[in-house]
Amino acid sequence: MRYEPVNSLESPRFSGVRTFMRLPHARPDAGPADGPDGVDVAFVGLPFDTGSSFRVGSRFGPEAIRAGSALLRPYHPELDLPIFRWVGAVDWGDVAVVPGFTEESYQRIEAGLAPLVRRGAVPIGLGGDHSVTLAELRAVAAVHGPVGLLQVDAHPDSWDLHFGQRYTHGTFVRRAVEEGLVDPAASIQVGLRGSGYGPEDLDQSRELGIEVMTMREVRRLGLDEASRRMRARAGDRAVFLSFDIDSLDPAYAPGTGTPEIGGFTSGEAVTLLWTLAGVRLVGADVVEVLPAHDPAGITAVAAANLAYQLLALVAWRKRRPARAS
Amino acid sequence: MRYEPVNSLESPRFSGVRTFMRLPHARPDAGPADGPDGVDVAFVGLPFDTGSSFRVGSRFGPEAIRAGSALLRPYHPELDLPIFRWVGAVDWGDVAVVPGFTEESYQRIEAGLAPLVRRGAVPIGLGGDHSVTLAELRAVAAVHGPVGLLQVDAHPDSWDLHFGQRYTHGTFVRRAVEEGLVDPAASIQVGLRGSGYGPEDLDQSRELGIEVMTMREVRRLGLDEASRRMRARAGDRAVFLSFDIDSLDPAYAPGTGTPEIGGFTSGEAVTLLWTLAGVRLVGADVVEVLPAHDPAGITAVAAANLAYQLLALVAWRKRRPARAS
Amino acid sequence: MRYEPVNSLESPRFSGVRTFMRLPHARPDAGPADGPDGVDVAFVGLPFDTGSSFRVGSRFGPEAIRAGSALLRPYHPELDLPIFRWVGAVDWGDVAVVPGFTEESYQRIEAGLAPLVRRGAVPIGLGGDHSVTLAELRAVAAVHGPVGLLQVDAHPDSWDLHFGQRYTHGTFVRRAVEEGLVDPAASIQVGLRGSGYGPEDLDQSRELGIEVMTMREVRRLGLDEASRRMRARAGDRAVFLSFDIDSLDPAYAPGTGTPEIGGFTSGEAVTLLWTLAGVRLVGADVVEVLPAHDPAGITAVAAANLAYQLLALVAWRKRRPARAS
Amino acid sequence: MRYEPVNSLESPRFSGVRTFMRLPHARPDAGPADGPDGVDVAFVGLPFDTGSSFRVGSRFGPEAIRAGSALLRPYHPELDLPIFRWVGAVDWGDVAVVPGFTEESYQRIEAGLAPLVRRGAVPIGLGGDHSVTLAELRAVAAVHGPVGLLQVDAHPDSWDLHFGQRYTHGTFVRRAVEEGLVDPAASIQVGLRGSGYGPEDLDQSRELGIEVMTMREVRRLGLDEASRRMRARAGDRAVFLSFDIDSLDPAYAPGTGTPEIGGFTSGEAVTLLWTLAGVRLVGADVVEVLPAHDPAGITAVAAANLAYQLLALVAWRKRRPARAS
Amino acid sequence: MRYEPVNSLESPRFSGVRTFMRLPHARPDAGPADGPDGVDVAFVGLPFDTGSSFRVGSRFGPEAIRAGSALLRPYHPELDLPIFRWVGAVDWGDVAVVPGFTEESYQRIEAGLAPLVRRGAVPIGLGGDHSVTLAELRAVAAVHGPVGLLQVDAHPDSWDLHFGQRYTHGTFVRRAVEEGLVDPAASIQVGLRGSGYGPEDLDQSRELGIEVMTMREVRRLGLDEASRRMRARAGDRAVFLSFDIDSLDPAYAPGTGTPEIGGFTSGEAVTLLWTLAGVRLVGADVVEVLPAHDPAGITAVAAANLAYQLLALVAWRKRRPARAS
Amino acid sequence: MRYEPVNSLESPRFSGVRTFMRLPHARPDAGPADGPDGVDVAFVGLPFDTGSSFRVGSRFGPEAIRAGSALLRPYHPELDLPIFRWVGAVDWGDVAVVPGFTEESYQRIEAGLAPLVRRGAVPIGLGGDHSVTLAELRAVAAVHGPVGLLQVDAHPDSWDLHFGQRYTHGTFVRRAVEEGLVDPAASIQVGLRGSGYGPEDLDQSRELGIEVMTMREVRRLGLDEASRRMRARAGDRAVFLSFDIDSLDPAYAPGTGTPEIGGFTSGEAVTLLWTLAGVRLVGADVVEVLPAHDPAGITAVAAANLAYQLLALVAWRKRRPARAS
Repeated sequence: MRYEPVNSLESPRFSGVRTFMRLPHARPDAGPADGPDGVDVAFVGLPFDTGSSFRVGSRFGPEAIRAGSALLRPYHPELDLPIFRWVGAVDWGDVAVVPGFTEESYQRIEAGLAPLVRRGAVPIGLGGDHSVTLAELRAVAAVHGPVGLLQVDAHPDSWDLHFGQRYTHGTFVRRAVEEGLVDPAASIQVGLRGSGYGPEDLDQSRELGIEVMTMREVRRLGLDEASRRMRARAGDRAVFLSFDIDSLDPAYAPGTGTPEIGGFTSGEAVTLLWTLAGVRLVGADVVEVLPAHDPAGITAVAAANLAYQLLALVAWRKRRPARAS
Repeated sequence: MRYEPVNSLESPRFSGVRTFMRLPHARPDAGPADGPDGVDVAFVGLPFDTGSSFRVGSRFGPEAIRAGSALLRPYHPELDLPIFRWVGAVDWGDVAVVPGFTEESYQRIEAGLAPLVRRGAVPIGLGGDHSVTLAELRAVAAVHGPVGLLQVDAHPDSWDLHFGQRYTHGTFVRRAVEEGLVDPAASIQVGLRGSGYGPEDLDQSRELGIEVMTMREVRRLGLDEASRRMRARAGDRAVFLSFDIDSLDPAYAPGTGTPEIGGFTSGEAVTLLWTLAGVRLVGADVVEVLPAHDPAGITAVAAANLAYQLLALVAWRKRRPARAS
Repeated sequence: MRYEPVNSLESPRFSGVRTFMRLPHARPDAGPADGPDGVDVAFVGLPFDTGSSFRVGSRFGPEAIRAGSALLRPYHPELDLPIFRWVGAVDWGDVAVVPGFTEESYQRIEAGLAPLVRRGAVPIGLGGDHSVTLAELRAVAAVHGPVGLLQVDAHPDSWDLHFGQRYTHGTFVRRAVEEGLVDPAASIQVGLRGSGYGPEDLDQSRELGIEVMTMREVRRLGLDEASRRMRARAGDRAVFLSFDIDSLDPAYAPGTGTPEIGGFTSGEAVTLLWTLAGVRLVGADVVEVLPAHDPAGITAVAAANLAYQLLALVAWRKRRPARAS
Repeated sequence: MRYEPVNSLESPRFSGVRTFMRLPHARPDAGPADGPDGVDVAFVGLPFDTGSSFRVGSRFGPEAIRAGSALLRPYHPELDLPIFRWVGAVDWGDVAVVPGFTEESYQRIEAGLAPLVRRGAVPIGLGGDHSVTLAELRAVAAVHGPVGLLQVDAHPDSWDLHFGQRYTHGTFVRRAVEEGLVDPAASIQVGLRGSGYGPEDLDQSRELGIEVMTMREVRRLGLDEASRRMRARAGDRAVFLSFDIDSLDPAYAPGTGTPEIGGFTSGEAVTLLWTLAGVRLVGADVVEVLPAHDPAGITAVAAANLAYQLLALVAWRKRRPARAS
Repeated sequence: MRYEPVNSLESPRFSGVRTFMRLPHARPDAGPADGPDGVDVAFVGLPFDTGSSFRVGSRFGPEAIRAGSALLRPYHPELDLPIFRWVGAVDWGDVAVVPGFTEESYQRIEAGLAPLVRRGAVPIGLGGDHSVTLAELRAVAAVHGPVGLLQVDAHPDSWDLHFGQRYTHGTFVRRAVEEGLVDPAASIQVGLRGSGYGPEDLDQSRELGIEVMTMREVRRLGLDEASRRMRARAGDRAVFLSFDIDSLDPAYAPGTGTPEIGGFTSGEAVTLLWTLAGVRLVGADVVEVLPAHDPAGITAVAAANLAYQLLALVAWRKRRPARAS
Repeated sequence: MRYEPVNSLESPRFSGVRTFMRLPHARPDAGPADGPDGVDVAFVGLPFDTGSSFRVGSRFGPEAIRAGSALLRPYHPELDLPIFRWVGAVDWGDVAVVPGFTEESYQRIEAGLAPLVRRGAVPIGLGGDHSVTLAELRAVAAVHGPVGLLQVDAHPDSWDLHFGQRYTHGTFVRRAVEEGLVDPAASIQVGLRGSGYGPEDLDQSRELGIEVMTMREVRRLGLDEASRRMRARAGDRAVFLSFDIDSLDPAYAPGTGTPEIGGFTSGEAVTLLWTLAGVRLVGADVVEVLPAHDPAGITAVAAANLAYQLLALVAWRKRRPARAS
């Protein structure tokens, strides 16, 4: 079996059960315990939203992103990259989370990703609220050790407690550092903006050792500088890239839980990602897609495109040795 | 201060901060510990939705019901009842629940309603998912002892466990019976329908001692019989009436979490409620309103009208002695 | 020129500039002063909504009704009536009302309809809020004298003042009686419902001499009785039929300004109208269509169908002598 | 492998790649040439909409129906029927139709269903516009010979030509009779209504030998009589049941291409279907679901429920011998 | 009582009766005649839309802006400003305007704001259509004398007559100059664009003495220059800042009455406002928010953020003396 | 008769049967065979969408663009151009295409435009999917010979076959070159972007001799350079400008069939068009507007504005000789 999209010249793009990018669907409960061979990237739905503090409903995010991915094609023009020449990819279905129960859901996500990571596949999570990233990091760090965290987000998510609780979409970064899953020295948060509680909002991330580049700085210094800093921070470390869809402006991504105006355009976000070509991605996600607030489906289309950039980053890295020869 | 709606001939219905039916807003944290005098009915938002098993977002239900209530007027023509001649009512605001944490939220709901119930006011909850009703019943039963439960609903909500969990919107009825909050002999569920897991779906309620009248029976025997059975079951007991908006057909209430086709029209539902005039209501709620799936706002308008019928039932009861004289 | 719809077998229904039922468009300002010959019915947009007390925007009602009318076909099966064998009809465009200025708009509506009425055509107004009906009645009564008013509506609209003002969508009936435009003895209001200000709500219409049949009575006595009463009231008088779309339930007509639950289904409303076959219609309207609250367009489709029934009533009347021969 | 839905107590209903009712997904191109063993019913998406004469977009109907089917449960209470004790079912994916090319798409549909029908499975098509039914009938009649057609629909679809064309959603019934796929004597159309082109609209179906029961007759004679006539017509013949979602009222099914007001409620439609228990279904479909006009998703939920009734009819038939023993 | 938002760590942001930014609600009719002490800023809803010339419905603008303001937090990072250390703010509710009656509504708005302005509070109006600004200017100028007008808008609104009428959303600027409420020499209009009636469109504002900077000039000269010109024009004069939401591009603010493409992004607009830090604001508004055309709520979120910048400008000014010490 | 918009100071913009920009409506079937005198520009609806490969429904594009054009005014400020001093324009209605039948529809489009082109009028098509442009080019080239094609688009549309078919919205450019309708040397495609099938995507256009400027190049080189290249390519040749609305970013144009993120803002697109002033336009279109995915109507407003720029280009050209004198 080839792990690539259905040929859209044979079956139209609007047909078929919806998998990400029309990739083969590998049921998590049907495959071998250690994951399939030949799979370099697995898209995994993480339909958990109990960690949301305002609007809720990103449990339907994976469904929406899959629907929004039907137009994606296998060649990446900016990178001149025929993706599936270099990698195989599947839609790994969703992890069976438990709505309302964060820690149990974390265990299920970690267990669901473990066989993939162990076999060397890169999981790309489709959220779900941002609290799921902690569980993904646990799965990834169990194999790769502490990773760099490249986070594109409107919010730092590095609070200690949220409503007195430790595990929410506003605290996952601090937990990840505390648990030794993330190496702050290889980590950066880009795109932070919006009103806050006080100057400590950003200081918290910085005190954890994570570099911070606000949206205001991105506007002043340019996208290229943002990309450069992310690459510099990552170096050749194993990194996890977490893209919160609320880093986009609400005009580009209305379907999210805690919108902040003044964000990236989708064109900028896509460029920011593919210009990272060369980083060593061992995991990634696109989170906080909330389709009930996305009447025209543009958030889902944008999220699918961003997940596609992440796939391209993995393919690029696989390709480089070949090109060197 | 008079606890009645703002005069809409002086200020237009679309103006002002949105309270239920344009009633005075009594902040829970601002009033005296035992609740205000002269308040017979308090509308209380219960914006909790962590108990939802499918679509989620009824935390915004109270906001939507308030917006949908602006057209309600003080005279009930079918009962020939000038409501505010007999009762005072306020919008008691929302209980500050904790999203993601059911038991802590239950404590806050119970604590939030306690002073109202102790002073003899009838709380009318605006949900929120159906899991909140257990907390309301705790508050009501603490003062009134076990109450009759008049439940209008598409689903029995009497499972033991849901995803292995005890407290969700699918288990609250069993918990309420187990905790001695509800007297099954004075209780009835009306409007049950839809596909199920097995014949035990309805047997579970019956085994708890609760009468069950399915939607199919309502269609065969008529609305009058449904009303008669509810009144017979209630007798002169203190009762709690819980109206799940999914008992309406999705054409009338698209904005809900677990829609089942084949339900009540809103006209039928309203009639079912006001023909209960005479029952002794000590608490009530309208739950499972999910505005993100209610693009035209008709669910919210229906829910507001149903909550208004509950208010009228309280006013009717207060009025009877006066009429007897 | 034939005043009938474009043949949909030659040009598809979704094509062409939108006129009501794809009828020829006769520009009010382009035709002869006294209106065209051969036109028995003229659909006239009345895009005025300054009389609205709650939601506003029915100025876009005529556009929406025209869009919703594209599927209407020329044969009425229940009446076995090929409509355009008996009547010619046009879309007369819109009257150029003045938003924000009720009395000036009234003058324009009256002046716009006058040439049509003088030549014997029946104007069918497409609203616009219900305040426009007073101006239509002025135009009709100027030729026909006081007419019977057959009003299908959730609200009586017979207040004296609304926010201290005389001309709004809540007062037009009283004004029409005061001005001698309407003969109360030939008039009836059907479908009234919803919460009110007091028992005087309905008494006001009755004191004006108008018969009232509430929705509750319709439910108890049946649609046939409602139709019978309307025909009895009309007798052979010249009548104006005013259909407020809020007489439909919000499930069937979410797109309106002051929704009341518990109304007619669209099937019932259509039946109520065509069973009036035989009444002498000299004017009619369908009002309060507010497309901004009609996300799926079902209100517009229903309104177009109701306007079509009104057209059929005129055609039926024209046909009867022919059949008698 | 068991051909039944995923257990929703183990994985939440909102999780996983969307198949109909969370059934196993059998890829048409992956299975054995003659279809799988143990599959009694196969849900098949038919995303073709080139036959639409007004609104278009039912190519996304299968996706929407799958999304709307997530709440369906395995036990049918009215029939006291645990469906999967008696039948195995799969989601067979979509046929790869060719948008814009009717006859080529017909060939693909017929070829896609043939292996299923040959092995005795009942295909339940998810449309797609009504033109697809002709191709389904070809596949079914190739094995079973001429079948009875039980059609629930607002329109007769028995025109000869539509815009001068032979194959559209308005002509499929005539073609099916001409091709000998349908036995008119075992066929009936129920629910016809709406304005027409002339009295010949219904005569055409009758002249083909098909019984016609209009919506007006259903309203006068009752649902039970409609069900009785359908059963009488079917007898013990092999029948194909085609449910056009526009037979529902637009309040219940706004998401369709040629809406007609005055239709069935979804509760009535469901009852009409399950009361057919006993008929010998060899094929069925639910068509004309157009999600772009279904903002709250209620059309999709209704369509999924209707498809579920069709599944129950197959299971009921399989069950009867067992019970007789 | 402290005039600051409810603590969102104690009660979640989605809970409670909706006031602007979760501020205390001071009922206009309940407070002392001259307004409360300790209130520096009062958000006041102005739900009037009779002055609208195209789409209408901004009477629901205040409700939507309040809902959109729930995510605002008390610290302004770009200005390093903890807002409520320096100012107290309340939600003053809505002025009870009279729909359909402009001049009477003007009197009510002026009377409603007068006690606030007299006590030194800065009113921030939440519109409503742009015609309300004239009444606000009357209230402000009555205390402060002629003010500078900083107007961010797609349209100049300086026509003499609109449909022959003097008071509409297209004429308020001219009226304000004629009435001596505005000092043209301290006034500027920024962001004008779109097709027009003739070159006189902009000349009219210039002839009144107001500086004009079109959107095309903003694009050529940059946002910094726009900000510089606004500050230069204002100097240390008392100024009123009026922000018409249609100055945003429709992608960022679809919910408005007369959309013009090619406008500001919300990020640009926010920057334009906070870089005015130092101007002496004595009144302000955000107008023309029309929620019925804002399906995803992004217009309301943007408007709330813009109103928040206005609040920050007042706080900044209050803070400066303290910092100087 | 003057071929200019209705005066909006006499009749409000929201009134009247919707024609493009409120221009006079000239029915194609009513006028003289060779088209009217005095008409320089004719807007023509082309409601054909059978060529769509993904989302479908642009048959309703012309209706939506007309609705979105109501706010357009006759003076173009950037060009200082009172349009109707130089040109007369009409809304020519729609061509009666045949849904589902591409080649027959092409014949009708070509025949519908021929009389206009012969008399020297410039047709501006309102689509409809991009397959219609081939038919427009046939009509234009029949009179003017091979024209330059200025195409603003996200996709090259120069495939040979699409699902094995020759005439779809993905192949029209190749067909037009093959048929000799387009002179590649005077042609350019601007704005191409998105994932692809391989490097040959763009090479195909280049091999046809057409210049290609991707969106990435536009971002790097600037809008002015894009405009310059388009003008250079056109020279003084007769050109056809085809604007695919999907060249806008989905945030600005969600209502389209094959959205690609990272596109033009509407402000950029408008500027790109009017800075072409001087090119010799003999035909143009705006295509792929799909209102079912345009909940707030912003796509339609943008499309109307773009069509208005095309009108201005014709007027500018007519004006130049006058200015030269």
